[in-house]
Amino acid sequence: MDLKAKIEFINEIDKLKTVLRVNLLSDASRRENTAEHSWHLGMMVLVLSEHTRQNVKIDLLKASKMALIHDIVEIDAGDTYCYDDQGHHDKYERELKCAERIFGLLPQSLGRELLDLWKEFETAESEEARYVRAIDRLNPFMQNFLSGGLTWKENNITRSQVMKRMGEIEENCPDLWPVFIDYLDKSIEQGWIKCDS
Amino acid sequence: MDLKAKIEFINEIDKLKTVLRVNLLSDASRRENTAEHSWHLGMMVLVLSEHTRQNVKIDLLKASKMALIHDIVEIDAGDTYCYDDQGHHDKYERELKCAERIFGLLPQSLGRELLDLWKEFETAESEEARYVRAIDRLNPFMQNFLSGGLTWKENNITRSQVMKRMGEIEENCPDLWPVFIDYLDKSIEQGWIKCDS
Repeated sequence: MDLKAKIEFINEIDKLKTVLRVNLLSDASRRENTAEHSWHLGMMVLVLSEHTRQNVKIDLLKASKMALIHDIVEIDAGDTYCYDDQGHHDKYERELKCAERIFGLLPQSLGRELLDLWKEFETAESEEARYVRAIDRLNPFMQNFLSGGLTWKENNITRSQVMKRMGEIEENCPDLWPVFIDYLDKSIEQGWIKCDS
Repeated sequence: MDLKAKIEFINEIDKLKTVLRVNLLSDASRRENTAEHSWHLGMMVLVLSEHTRQNVKIDLLKASKMALIHDIVEIDAGDTYCYDDQGHHDKYERELKCAERIFGLLPQSLGRELLDLWKEFETAESEEARYVRAIDRLNPFMQNFLSGGLTWKENNITRSQVMKRMGEIEENCPDLWPVFIDYLDKSIEQGWIKCDS
Protein backbone atom coordinates (compact mmCIF):
# COMPACT_ATOMS: atom_id res chain seq x y z
CA MET A 1 0.00 0.00 0.00
CA ASP A 2 1.36 3.40 -0.99
CA LEU A 3 0.94 5.16 2.34
CA LYS A 4 2.64 2.35 4.24
CA ALA A 5 5.66 2.62 1.93
CA LYS A 6 5.86 6.37 2.50
CA ILE A 7 5.75 5.94 6.28
CA GLU A 8 8.49 3.31 6.07
CA PHE A 9 10.65 5.74 4.08
CA ILE A 10 9.98 8.55 6.58
CA ASN A 11 11.03 6.32 9.48
CA GLU A 12 14.12 5.05 7.65
CA ILE A 13 15.51 8.50 6.90
CA ASP A 14 15.57 9.40 10.60
CA LYS A 15 19.00 7.71 10.45
CA LEU A 16 20.43 10.71 8.61
CA LYS A 17 20.45 12.52 11.97
CA THR A 18 23.12 10.09 13.18
CA VAL A 19 25.52 10.61 10.24
CA LEU A 20 28.31 12.93 11.33
CA ARG A 21 30.11 15.30 8.99
CA VAL A 22 33.69 16.46 9.42
CA ASN A 23 32.79 20.09 10.04
CA LEU A 24 31.56 21.53 13.34
CA LEU A 25 28.58 23.71 14.20
CA SER A 26 29.50 27.37 13.91
CA ASP A 27 29.85 27.61 17.72
CA ALA A 28 32.32 24.68 17.54
CA SER A 29 30.35 22.81 20.22
CA ARG A 30 30.15 19.55 18.28
CA ARG A 31 30.29 17.97 14.83
CA GLU A 32 27.37 18.66 12.52
CA ASN A 33 25.09 15.87 11.36
CA THR A 34 23.82 15.51 7.82
CA ALA A 35 20.12 16.02 8.57
CA GLU A 36 20.62 19.42 10.20
CA HIS A 37 23.09 20.34 7.43
CA SER A 38 20.38 19.51 4.88
CA TRP A 39 17.95 21.80 6.69
CA HIS A 40 20.51 24.62 6.69
CA LEU A 41 21.17 24.10 3.00
CA GLY A 42 17.41 24.17 2.34
CA MET A 43 17.19 27.51 4.12
CA MET A 44 20.14 28.91 2.15
CA VAL A 45 18.56 27.78 -1.10
CA LEU A 46 15.39 29.71 -0.21
CA VAL A 47 17.19 32.84 0.96
CA LEU A 48 19.78 33.12 -1.83
CA SER A 49 17.57 32.21 -4.78
CA GLU A 50 18.10 35.59 -6.49
CA HIS A 51 21.81 34.87 -6.78
CA THR A 52 21.89 32.34 -9.60
CA ARG A 53 24.32 32.92 -12.48
CA GLN A 54 23.17 35.59 -14.91
CA ASN A 55 20.01 35.78 -12.77
CA VAL A 56 18.70 32.63 -14.43
CA LYS A 57 15.20 31.94 -13.13
CA ILE A 58 15.11 28.56 -11.42
CA ASP A 59 12.34 26.27 -10.21
CA LEU A 60 12.69 26.89 -6.48
CA LEU A 61 10.57 23.91 -5.43
CA LYS A 62 12.83 21.63 -7.43
CA ALA A 63 15.92 23.26 -5.90
CA SER A 64 14.44 22.90 -2.40
CA LYS A 65 13.73 19.22 -2.95
CA MET A 66 17.32 18.73 -4.12
CA ALA A 67 18.67 20.44 -1.02
CA LEU A 68 16.62 18.25 1.30
CA ILE A 69 17.53 14.95 -0.40
CA HIS A 70 21.05 15.66 -1.71
CA ASP A 71 22.89 13.84 1.10
CA ILE A 72 20.28 11.25 2.08
CA VAL A 73 22.52 8.58 0.57
CA GLU A 74 24.93 9.09 3.47
CA ILE A 75 22.63 6.87 5.54
CA ASP A 76 24.44 3.92 3.93
CA ALA A 77 27.49 5.53 2.36
CA GLY A 78 28.55 7.83 5.22
CA ASP A 79 29.97 11.31 4.81
CA THR A 80 32.98 11.59 2.51
CA TYR A 81 35.28 14.42 3.59
CA CYS A 82 35.41 16.98 0.80
CA TYR A 83 39.23 16.92 0.64
CA ASP A 84 39.48 13.11 0.76
CA ASP A 85 40.58 12.30 -2.81
CA GLN A 86 40.71 8.58 -2.06
CA GLY A 87 37.16 8.54 -0.69
CA HIS A 88 35.89 10.45 -3.71
CA HIS A 89 37.23 7.81 -6.07
CA ASP A 90 34.25 5.45 -5.68
CA LYS A 91 31.88 7.92 -3.98
CA TYR A 92 29.32 8.03 -6.78
CA GLU A 93 29.01 4.25 -7.05
CA ARG A 94 28.65 3.82 -3.29
CA GLU A 95 26.08 6.57 -3.10
CA LEU A 96 24.08 5.44 -6.14
CA LYS A 97 23.58 2.03 -4.55
CA CYS A 98 22.19 3.71 -1.44
CA ALA A 99 20.01 6.10 -3.46
CA GLU A 100 18.45 3.14 -5.24
CA ARG A 101 17.77 1.36 -1.96
CA ILE A 102 16.37 4.33 -0.05
CA PHE A 103 14.28 5.97 -2.78
CA GLY A 104 13.25 2.44 -3.74
CA LEU A 105 11.33 2.23 -0.46
CA LEU A 106 8.84 4.76 -1.85
CA PRO A 107 5.94 4.16 -4.26
CA GLN A 108 7.44 3.83 -7.74
CA SER A 109 6.71 7.21 -9.35
CA LEU A 110 7.66 9.22 -6.27
CA GLY A 111 10.80 7.15 -5.72
CA ARG A 112 11.78 7.59 -9.36
CA GLU A 113 11.25 11.37 -9.15
CA LEU A 114 13.53 11.70 -6.11
CA LEU A 115 16.15 9.32 -7.52
CA ASP A 116 16.24 11.34 -10.75
CA LEU A 117 16.53 14.57 -8.79
CA TRP A 118 19.43 13.13 -6.80
CA LYS A 119 21.21 12.03 -9.99
CA GLU A 120 20.58 15.43 -11.55
CA PHE A 121 22.19 17.07 -8.52
CA GLU A 122 25.18 14.74 -8.62
CA THR A 123 25.81 15.29 -12.31
CA ALA A 124 25.07 19.04 -12.20
CA GLU A 125 22.75 18.63 -15.16
CA SER A 126 20.37 21.54 -14.61
CA GLU A 127 20.41 25.14 -13.47
CA GLU A 128 18.78 24.07 -10.20
CA ALA A 129 21.49 21.45 -9.61
CA ARG A 130 24.27 23.92 -10.38
CA TYR A 131 22.77 26.49 -8.02
CA VAL A 132 22.28 24.03 -5.12
CA ARG A 133 25.76 22.56 -5.64
CA ALA A 134 27.35 26.01 -5.38
CA ILE A 135 25.45 26.73 -2.15
CA ASP A 136 26.49 23.31 -0.84
CA ARG A 137 30.13 24.35 -1.41
CA LEU A 138 29.74 27.66 0.39
CA ASN A 139 27.88 26.28 3.41
CA PRO A 140 30.61 24.12 5.03
CA PHE A 141 33.19 26.75 4.19
CA MET A 142 31.20 29.28 6.21
CA GLN A 143 30.71 26.78 9.04
CA ASN A 144 34.44 26.05 9.15
CA PHE A 145 35.25 29.73 9.18
CA LEU A 146 32.81 30.53 12.00
CA SER A 147 34.02 27.60 14.10
CA GLY A 148 37.61 28.83 13.97
CA GLY A 149 38.97 26.73 11.10
CA LEU A 150 39.66 23.70 13.32
CA THR A 151 39.02 21.07 10.68
CA TRP A 152 41.20 22.90 8.15
CA LYS A 153 44.07 23.04 10.62
CA GLU A 154 43.70 19.38 11.56
CA ASN A 155 43.81 18.37 7.91
CA ASN A 156 46.49 20.87 6.76
CA ILE A 157 44.20 22.26 4.10
CA THR A 158 45.83 24.61 1.59
CA ARG A 159 44.55 27.52 -0.48
CA SER A 160 44.93 25.62 -3.73
CA GLN A 161 42.83 22.70 -2.43
CA VAL A 162 40.11 25.12 -1.43
CA MET A 163 40.20 27.09 -4.68
CA LYS A 164 39.91 23.93 -6.73
CA ARG A 165 36.82 22.85 -4.81
CA MET A 166 35.13 26.24 -4.71
CA GLY A 167 35.21 26.94 -8.44
CA GLU A 168 31.55 25.99 -8.69
CA ILE A 169 30.64 29.04 -6.62
CA GLU A 170 32.34 31.43 -9.02
CA GLU A 171 30.77 29.73 -12.00
CA ASN A 172 27.24 29.19 -10.74
CA CYS A 173 26.64 31.85 -8.08
CA PRO A 174 29.05 34.67 -8.99
CA ASP A 175 27.36 37.08 -6.54
CA LEU A 176 28.54 34.81 -3.73
CA TRP A 177 32.15 34.64 -4.89
CA PRO A 178 33.21 37.83 -3.03
CA VAL A 179 31.63 36.42 0.15
CA PHE A 180 33.75 33.30 -0.20
CA ILE A 181 36.92 35.27 -1.05
CA ASP A 182 36.44 37.48 2.01
CA TYR A 183 36.18 34.41 4.28
CA LEU A 184 39.14 32.78 2.52
CA ASP A 185 41.40 35.82 2.92
CA LYS A 186 40.56 36.06 6.61
CA SER A 187 41.18 32.33 7.06
CA ILE A 188 44.62 32.63 5.48
CA GLU A 189 45.42 35.67 7.65
CA GLN A 190 44.48 33.62 10.72
CA GLY A 191 46.73 30.78 9.56
CA TRP A 192 43.76 28.38 9.38
CA ILE A 193 44.37 27.68 5.67
CA LYS A 194 47.93 27.45 4.35
CA CYS A 195 48.82 29.80 1.54
CA ASP A 196 50.50 27.60 -1.11
CA SER A 197 49.57 29.60 -4.21
CA MET B 1 23.64 45.59 1.59
CA ASP B 2 21.13 42.85 0.83
CA LEU B 3 23.57 39.97 0.44
CA LYS B 4 25.36 40.79 3.69
CA ALA B 5 22.00 40.71 5.53
CA LYS B 6 21.19 37.30 4.04
CA ILE B 7 24.56 35.89 5.10
CA GLU B 8 24.06 37.24 8.62
CA PHE B 9 20.65 35.51 8.76
CA ILE B 10 22.13 32.24 7.49
CA ASN B 11 24.83 32.34 10.14
CA GLU B 12 22.37 33.25 12.91
CA ILE B 13 20.02 30.34 12.23
CA ASP B 14 22.81 27.81 12.78
CA LYS B 15 21.76 28.15 16.44
CA LEU B 16 18.61 26.12 15.75
CA LYS B 17 20.86 23.04 15.73
CA THR B 18 21.50 23.57 19.45
CA VAL B 19 17.83 23.79 20.48
CA LEU B 20 16.78 20.46 21.99
CA ARG B 21 13.27 19.07 21.79
CA VAL B 22 11.71 16.75 24.36
CA ASN B 23 11.45 13.77 22.00
CA LEU B 24 14.29 11.43 21.09
CA LEU B 25 15.59 10.20 17.75
CA SER B 26 13.78 7.05 16.70
CA ASP B 27 16.75 4.93 17.85
CA ALA B 28 16.46 6.62 21.28
CA SER B 29 20.18 7.48 21.18
CA ARG B 30 19.70 11.14 22.10
CA ARG B 31 17.24 14.03 22.11
CA GLU B 32 16.35 15.51 18.75
CA ASN B 33 17.25 19.10 17.88
CA THR B 34 14.93 21.48 16.12
CA ALA B 35 16.99 21.90 12.93
CA GLU B 36 17.05 18.18 12.13
CA HIS B 37 13.35 17.96 13.08
CA SER B 38 12.66 20.73 10.56
CA TRP B 39 14.49 18.79 7.87
CA HIS B 40 12.48 15.66 8.67
CA LEU B 41 9.25 17.63 8.55
CA GLY B 42 10.29 19.11 5.19
CA MET B 43 10.81 15.61 3.83
CA MET B 44 7.43 14.44 5.17
CA VAL B 45 5.74 17.44 3.57
CA LEU B 46 7.25 16.46 0.20
CA VAL B 47 6.43 12.77 0.50
CA LEU B 48 2.88 13.04 1.86
CA SER B 49 1.63 15.91 -0.30
CA GLU B 50 -1.13 13.82 -1.89
CA HIS B 51 -2.74 13.34 1.50
CA THR B 52 -4.34 16.71 2.09
CA ARG B 53 -8.00 16.82 3.12
CA GLN B 54 -10.40 16.20 0.27
CA ASN B 55 -7.31 16.03 -1.94
CA VAL B 56 -7.11 19.83 -1.96
CA LYS B 57 -4.28 20.90 -4.24
CA ILE B 58 -1.70 22.87 -2.26
CA ASP B 59 1.25 25.06 -3.19
CA LEU B 60 4.03 22.65 -2.29
CA LEU B 61 6.80 25.26 -2.37
CA LYS B 62 4.88 27.35 0.14
CA ALA B 63 4.31 24.28 2.33
CA SER B 64 8.02 23.38 2.12
CA LYS B 65 9.04 26.87 3.15
CA MET B 66 6.67 26.68 6.11
CA ALA B 67 8.13 23.35 7.21
CA LEU B 68 11.68 24.70 7.10
CA ILE B 69 10.91 27.91 9.04
CA HIS B 70 8.05 26.83 11.33
CA ASP B 71 10.21 26.36 14.44
CA ILE B 72 13.00 28.86 13.73
CA VAL B 73 11.63 31.05 16.53
CA GLU B 74 12.86 28.46 19.03
CA ILE B 75 16.32 30.02 18.68
CA ASP B 76 15.14 32.62 21.20
CA ALA B 77 11.98 31.08 22.61
CA GLY B 78 13.18 27.48 23.13
CA ASP B 79 11.11 24.38 22.54
CA THR B 80 7.77 24.27 24.37
CA TYR B 81 6.75 20.70 25.19
CA CYS B 82 3.52 19.91 23.39
CA TYR B 83 1.75 18.81 26.59
CA ASP B 84 2.97 21.77 28.67
CA ASP B 85 -0.26 23.80 29.10
CA GLN B 86 1.50 26.44 31.18
CA GLY B 87 4.23 26.96 28.56
CA HIS B 88 1.63 27.25 25.81
CA HIS B 89 -0.10 30.12 27.62
CA ASP B 90 2.30 32.80 26.34
CA LYS B 91 3.95 30.75 23.58
CA TYR B 92 2.68 32.82 20.67
CA GLU B 93 3.80 36.16 22.17
CA ARG B 94 7.28 34.82 22.99
CA GLU B 95 7.67 33.30 19.56
CA LEU B 96 6.32 36.30 17.67
CA LYS B 97 8.99 38.49 19.28
CA CYS B 98 11.65 36.07 18.08
CA ALA B 99 10.14 35.80 14.59
CA GLU B 100 10.26 39.58 14.25
CA ARG B 101 13.89 39.66 15.35
CA ILE B 102 15.14 36.77 13.22
CA PHE B 103 13.24 37.43 10.00
CA GLY B 104 14.01 41.11 10.60
CA LEU B 105 17.66 40.32 9.89
CA LEU B 106 16.74 39.73 6.23
CA PRO B 107 16.18 42.31 3.50
CA GLN B 108 12.71 43.76 4.04
CA SER B 109 10.59 42.03 1.41
CA LEU B 110 12.09 38.59 2.01
CA GLY B 111 11.88 39.01 5.79
CA ARG B 112 8.25 40.07 5.50
CA GLU B 113 7.42 37.06 3.29
CA LEU B 114 8.88 34.61 5.80
CA LEU B 115 7.34 36.37 8.81
CA ASP B 116 3.92 36.25 7.11
CA LEU B 117 4.41 32.56 6.29
CA TRP B 118 5.29 31.85 9.90
CA LYS B 119 2.20 33.70 11.15
CA GLU B 120 0.04 31.88 8.60
CA PHE B 121 1.37 28.56 9.91
CA GLU B 122 0.74 29.54 13.52
CA THR B 123 -2.81 30.67 12.88
CA ALA B 124 -3.63 27.79 10.47
CA GLU B 125 -4.99 30.30 8.00
CA SER B 126 -4.41 28.44 4.73
CA GLU B 127 -4.62 24.92 3.32
CA GLU B 128 -0.81 24.77 3.29
CA ALA B 129 -0.66 25.75 6.96
CA ARG B 130 -3.29 23.20 7.93
CA TYR B 131 -1.49 20.46 6.02
CA VAL B 132 1.95 21.22 7.50
CA ARG B 133 0.48 21.55 11.01
CA ALA B 134 -1.09 18.11 10.76
CA ILE B 135 2.21 16.58 9.62
CA ASP B 136 3.96 18.40 12.47
CA ARG B 137 1.58 16.67 14.89
CA LEU B 138 2.20 13.22 13.41
CA ASN B 139 6.00 13.50 13.27
CA PRO B 140 6.86 13.62 17.00
CA PHE B 141 4.19 11.02 17.70
CA MET B 142 5.94 8.63 15.31
CA GLN B 143 9.34 9.48 16.80
CA ASN B 144 8.05 8.83 20.32
CA PHE B 145 6.54 5.54 19.24
CA LEU B 146 9.71 4.33 17.51
CA SER B 147 11.90 5.32 20.45
CA GLY B 148 9.84 3.22 22.85
CA GLY B 149 7.52 5.86 24.30
CA LEU B 150 10.08 7.05 26.87
CA THR B 151 8.97 10.69 26.93
CA TRP B 152 5.29 9.68 27.27
CA LYS B 153 6.11 7.45 30.22
CA GLU B 154 8.23 10.12 31.90
CA ASN B 155 5.44 12.65 31.57
CA ASN B 156 2.51 10.29 32.35
CA ILE B 157 0.79 11.16 29.09
CA THR B 158 -2.79 9.93 28.71
CA ARG B 159 -4.90 8.97 25.72
CA SER B 160 -7.20 11.96 26.16
CA GLN B 161 -4.25 14.38 26.11
CA VAL B 162 -3.00 12.80 22.91
CA MET B 163 -6.43 12.71 21.23
CA LYS B 164 -7.01 16.39 21.98
CA ARG B 165 -3.71 17.34 20.39
CA MET B 166 -3.99 15.07 17.36
CA GLY B 167 -7.41 16.26 16.17
CA GLU B 168 -5.70 18.35 13.49
CA ILE B 169 -4.55 15.15 11.76
CA GLU B 170 -8.09 13.80 11.47
CA GLU B 171 -9.38 17.12 10.22
CA ASN B 172 -6.60 18.11 7.82
CA CYS B 173 -4.95 14.84 6.69
CA PRO B 174 -7.68 12.21 7.14
CA ASP B 175 -5.65 9.62 5.16
CA LEU B 176 -3.07 9.74 7.96
CA TRP B 177 -5.55 9.27 10.78
CA PRO B 178 -5.48 5.43 10.62
CA VAL B 179 -1.65 5.57 10.74
CA PHE B 180 -1.86 7.59 13.94
CA ILE B 181 -4.58 5.38 15.45
CA ASP B 182 -2.51 2.27 14.76
CA TYR B 183 0.51 3.76 16.56
CA LEU B 184 -1.73 4.98 19.40
CA ASP B 185 -3.36 1.58 19.94
CA LYS B 186 0.04 -0.11 20.03
CA SER B 187 1.36 2.52 22.45
CA ILE B 188 -1.56 1.92 24.81
CA GLU B 189 -1.06 -1.86 24.56
CA GLN B 190 2.58 -1.36 25.53
CA GLY B 191 1.58 0.80 28.49
CA TRP B 192 3.47 3.79 27.10
CA ILE B 193 0.32 5.93 27.03
CA LYS B 194 -2.29 5.62 29.80
CA CYS B 195 -5.79 4.74 28.75
CA ASP B 196 -8.04 7.26 30.54
CA SER B 197 -10.92 7.42 28.07
